[in-house]
Amino acid sequence: MFDYNESFQSAIAALKRERRYRTFADLERKAGQFPHALWNSPGGARNVVVWCSNDYLGMGQHPKVIEAMCTAARTMGAGAGGTRNISGTNRALVQLEAELADLHNKEAALVFTSGYVSNHTGIATIARLLPDCLILSDALNHNSMIEGVRAAGCARQIWRHNDLEHLEELLSRAAPGRPKLIVFESVYSMDGDVAPLKAICDLAQRYNAMTYLDEVHAVGMYGPRGAGIAERDGVMARIDVIEGTLAKAFGTLGGYIAGSSAVVDAVRSHAPGFIFTTALPPAVAAAAIASIAHLKVSDVERMGQRAAVAATKAALRGAGLPVLATETHIVPVMVGDPALCKQASDLLLERHGIYIQPINYPTVARGTERLRITPTPAHDVRLIQQLADALVSVWQGLDLPLGRDYRYVERRAQMLAAGG
Amino acid sequence: MFDYNESFQSAIAALKRERRYRTFADLERKAGQFPHALWNSPGGARNVVVWCSNDYLGMGQHPKVIEAMCTAARTMGAGAGGTRNISGTNRALVQLEAELADLHNKEAALVFTSGYVSNHTGIATIARLLPDCLILSDALNHNSMIEGVRAAGCARQIWRHNDLEHLEELLSRAAPGRPKLIVFESVYSMDGDVAPLKAICDLAQRYNAMTYLDEVHAVGMYGPRGAGIAERDGVMARIDVIEGTLAKAFGTLGGYIAGSSAVVDAVRSHAPGFIFTTALPPAVAAAAIASIAHLKVSDVERMGQRAAVAATKAALRGAGLPVLATETHIVPVMVGDPALCKQASDLLLERHGIYIQPINYPTVARGTERLRITPTPAHDVRLIQQLADALVSVWQGLDLPLGRDYRYVERRAQMLAAGG
Ligand SMILES: Cc1ncc(COP(=O)(O)O)c(C=O)c1O
Ligand SMILES: Cc1ncc(COP(=O)(O)O)c(C=O)c1O
Repeated sequence: MFDYNESFQSAIAALKRERRYRTFADLERKAGQFPHALWNSPGGARNVVVWCSNDYLGMGQHPKVIEAMCTAARTMGAGAGGTRNISGTNRALVQLEAELADLHNKEAALVFTSGYVSNHTGIATIARLLPDCLILSDALNHNSMIEGVRAAGCARQIWRHNDLEHLEELLSRAAPGRPKLIVFESVYSMDGDVAPLKAICDLAQRYNAMTYLDEVHAVGMYGPRGAGIAERDGVMARIDVIEGTLAKAFGTLGGYIAGSSAVVDAVRSHAPGFIFTTALPPAVAAAAIASIAHLKVSDVERMGQRAAVAATKAALRGAGLPVLATETHIVPVMVGDPALCKQASDLLLERHGIYIQPINYPTVARGTERLRITPTPAHDVRLIQQLADALVSVWQGLDLPLGRDYRYVERRAQMLAAGG
Repeated sequence: MFDYNESFQSAIAALKRERRYRTFADLERKAGQFPHALWNSPGGARNVVVWCSNDYLGMGQHPKVIEAMCTAARTMGAGAGGTRNISGTNRALVQLEAELADLHNKEAALVFTSGYVSNHTGIATIARLLPDCLILSDALNHNSMIEGVRAAGCARQIWRHNDLEHLEELLSRAAPGRPKLIVFESVYSMDGDVAPLKAICDLAQRYNAMTYLDEVHAVGMYGPRGAGIAERDGVMARIDVIEGTLAKAFGTLGGYIAGSSAVVDAVRSHAPGFIFTTALPPAVAAAAIASIAHLKVSDVERMGQRAAVAATKAALRGAGLPVLATETHIVPVMVGDPALCKQASDLLLERHGIYIQPINYPTVARGTERLRITPTPAHDVRLIQQLADALVSVWQGLDLPLGRDYRYVERRAQMLAAGG
């Protein structure tokens, strides 16, 4: 007799042994008071400061966004009531797709229930529509892209992260007439580094490859209208498909792709993850529209974020903490050990009322465990100083090295050199 | 030079040639006035009656549900701000999972961004955690389950739809000690038929198989507390994993599984489609809680739906329309040809202000194209009579057969007998 429950229990036990078992912090963010939140701890509710939210600009608490959500719910109801094809295409969604096409200056856009689903079903569908397609995928692509590449079922090659020479090598080896899809991100969310978009577009052009770019951690935040790194770098028109999320800087929920009418219509008509699922509620779509429209014309949030990020990086570096150098809004403080990373996070929460989730394998490679800090416009100088002080005290308590010589940086360089 | 755009264009052209190209109706439902909606047609906005919504009980316009959504948005903001692990586990989601575990009388429940994702990543993850698992999947399972089975990457066998003998044959052929996962639905959404749950549970017990049941088209509507067909049939405790959606009878968005603590914790810890995506907004979770809690104790909506369904079936049958006999709330009126099905739908919309989306391949098998009608408690006797009259007029206009001898029923029987 096979014991099913035993299988599941032993899978959990293995995670606990490896110290990879995750417990979720039960949080109640307070609109109007971000980044403050109530943490429902086992011992009772406590006030904490959230330092790891991907609501990067705090748009989730913007009065315009909340108001748009409530107005749409009051007038159109709480759900879409059907798949896109069967009664679920609501007015707000149609408007949202127009707003997104305009944001990226593309002919069309298509909304999915999440950025995860956009990548998963979007990449798989595009590749399946191209005969004998070869996918070239960056080594550090997000799980949603990896699963999309896998689901495509076609040939795939992995190029070393952001390594143009390797990408060119693979492109040049493929038959010239063969369709090739280059799949990559702009801002990589865990290291906060940025892909060389222009150079990748140059290669794509030279080798007649199609480009699919995930701007999930960039939309809303980069470029004059918040369309992302491709807008900032002036290459938006050269990217064939831009994928983004409505759930991070835009503060709501959902994902999308933007591109030519043909590619968008083909995905709309063939992608199972788009076709066979209930559409986003009008209230969510309306909230997203309000957020995108606001960030197209307002720079206040982006400026506030940049100031908070700069101040945070300076304060932590000044205190000797092992901050990974990034050019973006993501501030990784390296630990390099899963148990210590979890302990650091626990101490911050329990002793200092600061919530920063530990980032362990499989989200990042083993040996690169970290605290990933994301300052928003609402993190002021006082909160930044508190954070630096708390981190130093935790680092001292756990006997973690303070100073600039963090060994991880070396190790990582070795790993990348070895093609990890 | 490979021409990418040409590939996408020709994929679209092929759909148009096969008359499978879909255009979405742009709708604006009016909370408080369901099933009435505004249809934004190319020629301007028009009032229509929606007869194909999966907001089966109209809970999407229930004042309690809308109010819960707005209150949560006002107090907690418009989005979750992170994945479940990284700051996205909001209070409302934790409460929603408790509400769902209670609904199905299981130890635990886990919420996903959609029912589609629940099935896709849920089935794949459960199967991967069982060594050398054999999946036994009903032939008419929904695309989300098929994709989940495929993603599992293990051995799979398809049993003929609701055919207990075939299921037993496959079970008995597998090695006794081998883990087996039976994957099936309760209410099949396109034919409206119901699986013999008790007999399947008996087989699962005899052959020591695990059961995974999709109750997406049953939750909220069947059983004393709206927990589904398994509750109605008194076998809920014998189903290992119950999967459901919050986006149909509950009127909001999201999906879930409910089961033992071990299986839920294992999926929580391993499922990529759960881990690597932003959590549902607190406003959506709060709306879902309000809806579930209401339907646990209120029978008014279920009674109203049953009355509307019975009256609709009687009126359409009385008028000689080819209604497929079902024991559920789903009322398929068979056409059997994609072009005629689309024309019937167009005529209903343009001449009669009645919106019923044509259901063509790949959602249903070719030759079984249909209008799928879903009466809700808000469809009153007057609307039902209008529907019957309009359908008759359309049937006459298109020279479709009126009378009880609809050939499809025969054809389908043949098809099933042949193992289609
Ligand atoms: C690079 C990247 N792409 C896609 C996603 C998925 O987006 P969403 O949260 O909208 O599902 C994420 C994270 O969640 C991500 O980090
Ligand atoms: C049987 C079945 N399971 C799952 C789903 C997906 O649920 P959701 O709409 O919540 O993604 C659907 C339809 O949408 C369905 O018909």
